[in-house]
Amino acid sequence: MLKSPISFDDLTRLIEAIFLRAGFTPAQAGPITRVIAAGERDNCKSHGVYRIAGCLSTVKAGKVDPAAVPQVVDTEGAVVRVTAAGGFANAAFELGAPVLAERARALGFAALAINDCVHFSALWPEVEALTGEGLAAIAMCPSYATVAPAGGRTPLFGTNPFAFGWPRPGGIPYVFDFATSVAARGEVELHARAGTPLPEGWAIDVAGNPTTSPSEALAGALLPFGGHKGSAISTMIELLAGAMIGDMMSPEAMAALGGRALAPRHGELILAFDPARFAAGRGRDPLADAETMLEAIAGQGARLPSQRRYAARAQALAEGITLTEAELTELQRLRDNGLDAVA
Amino acid sequence: MLKSPISFDDLTRLIEAIFLRAGFTPAQAGPITRVIAAGERDNCKSHGVYRIAGCLSTVKAGKVDPAAVPQVVDTEGAVVRVTAAGGFANAAFELGAPVLAERARALGFAALAINDCVHFSALWPEVEALTGEGLAAIAMCPSYATVAPAGGRTPLFGTNPFAFGWPRPGGIPYVFDFATSVAARGEVELHARAGTPLPEGWAIDVAGNPTTSPSEALAGALLPFGGHKGSAISTMIELLAGAMIGDMMSPEAMAALGGRALAPRHGELILAFDPARFAAGRGRDPLADAETMLEAIAGQGARLPSQRRYAARAQALAEGITLTEAELTELQRLRDNGLDAVA
Repeated sequence: MLKSPISFDDLTRLIEAIFLRAGFTPAQAGPITRVIAAGERDNCKSHGVYRIAGCLSTVKAGKVDPAAVPQVVDTEGAVVRVTAAGGFANAAFELGAPVLAERARALGFAALAINDCVHFSALWPEVEALTGEGLAAIAMCPSYATVAPAGGRTPLFGTNPFAFGWPRPGGIPYVFDFATSVAARGEVELHARAGTPLPEGWAIDVAGNPTTSPSEALAGALLPFGGHKGSAISTMIELLAGAMIGDMMSPEAMAALGGRALAPRHGELILAFDPARFAAGRGRDPLADAETMLEAIAGQGARLPSQRRYAARAQALAEGITLTEAELTELQRLRDNGLDAVA
Repeated sequence: MLKSPISFDDLTRLIEAIFLRAGFTPAQAGPITRVIAAGERDNCKSHGVYRIAGCLSTVKAGKVDPAAVPQVVDTEGAVVRVTAAGGFANAAFELGAPVLAERARALGFAALAINDCVHFSALWPEVEALTGEGLAAIAMCPSYATVAPAGGRTPLFGTNPFAFGWPRPGGIPYVFDFATSVAARGEVELHARAGTPLPEGWAIDVAGNPTTSPSEALAGALLPFGGHKGSAISTMIELLAGAMIGDMMSPEAMAALGGRALAPRHGELILAFDPARFAAGRGRDPLADAETMLEAIAGQGARLPSQRRYAARAQALAEGITLTEAELTELQRLRDNGLDAVA
């Protein structure tokens, strides 16, 4: 019988057992488990255990290969390309990240394009991993088309996450990771489950009118954050992390998926910068200068991003992770029944 | 006697004559003239002729060298570094851009760091220039500290512009260029000159309270666009285009300047991507795919960025540029009196 709180290590083993039971190879199960366990550890519930059933449904629908073998197909110049070969993005990232880090250190600056992946993960674990190599990193990807451009009325963009990481002394980096929609679709789904109305400004209904109904929003369109500026950034993500890397943009990802219930297929773009190389010869310490800025932000009472996650992480590692009875029952059901547990 | 409308070529010659009269070398006068003339041509008034007096004042205050000789100091790997040697950024950009384009084509992806520059320019002329080379580009820089972080109350960030360009068939690229504050400081200054109140949400006063008074806003702090998400992007710009490239961030730029009336000194970061290289081997045409997305945005009635600029440009090139009597008088005064014309 599963019990809450559960240690991070036990939760990790449990999630991995679920994926192995569902037919994932160990090489696929490990990376996807690590990001879901990290999400639950950091109380980032929208990317935690509640995502597992959707991942299994995506396998069952034949939309992702749980035995895919990702490959590094190109390392010329400053561009590293990894194909996920139809598997989840996570194993492809773990394969490509060390190559990206090596190229960034050699050239000062490099990019990792992941193609042909199915994507459900938060991006913060990836930029955080690169900060662990002493690098700054930007990650971005399309999603399925659920967001209308500013001034429009029809879903066209994905929620298109944009993440950034910067290394800090002590190992806890500066990291942000946000949807370029006002809200992540996962947040709207959580409101739908809880039966609570959305804050104003999140979404429009199918007729293009503002709505606070989660179901109307899911049927209509989400809105970009920050009006036309956020809409422009979301466009940039479609172009750079979709068209430019020769992969699907959000409308095509949606069409390929045939619905919104499964994890979408598309690519991802990650940029890595070596601050030591960029600052070379300038007589300044980029990491020390950055601390001055970050401390000044926190010093005037403005919250740095990710602080709630880091606090939840510290607590989870010390005291274990609290799961509800319903969550524990669901995890047990998934572990015992594999793909038979999901639609 | 100057007359309106004035042709783009005549306006360009007039602006260049002003800078030469004020002691700029031809190598410095040319590039700065081109961006100011382009601003006026595109009816981008906040970066047009009204900036000239500020540029001259910055020279007169000894804060910029009108005879600086920019130099390419580093082209190793994927990082190109140009020092503006204490001059305006424009000449440094024109020197570094061809080297950046060459590196981006050779490696797929490269970065240009401009150091030790005085900066007043819009970034869209720069990303547009790179799209003319078939490249996608991102440009960003700090400014002087006038923007409070979301949740804070004291100026810390600059208005930190973020610009992106993507090449399109026919030569008119997809370009956006916006301040990561709700409004550019130049827009607040224009409200102050016109005596009109600011829209709500642009700024706080010195006590941290919301204000619609341009003068209270200029004494207090501007706000980032998009709440904590825009604030995070502005932080990223400080770190990448300030600390990382070994140059000033916005608080230091403000301190070095000793006031807000002059053009600030700091660095700039420009990233260039070769879409042909990123899409290689994928069997897709990244520019054609991008057109599908851009046409879908416009097709649902959402405005693409820069369309008003492009329309103004077409009109200006066909019919000349309309200037007010006051603008013409001022330009004549500057041309006739050089640095004696400004405080």
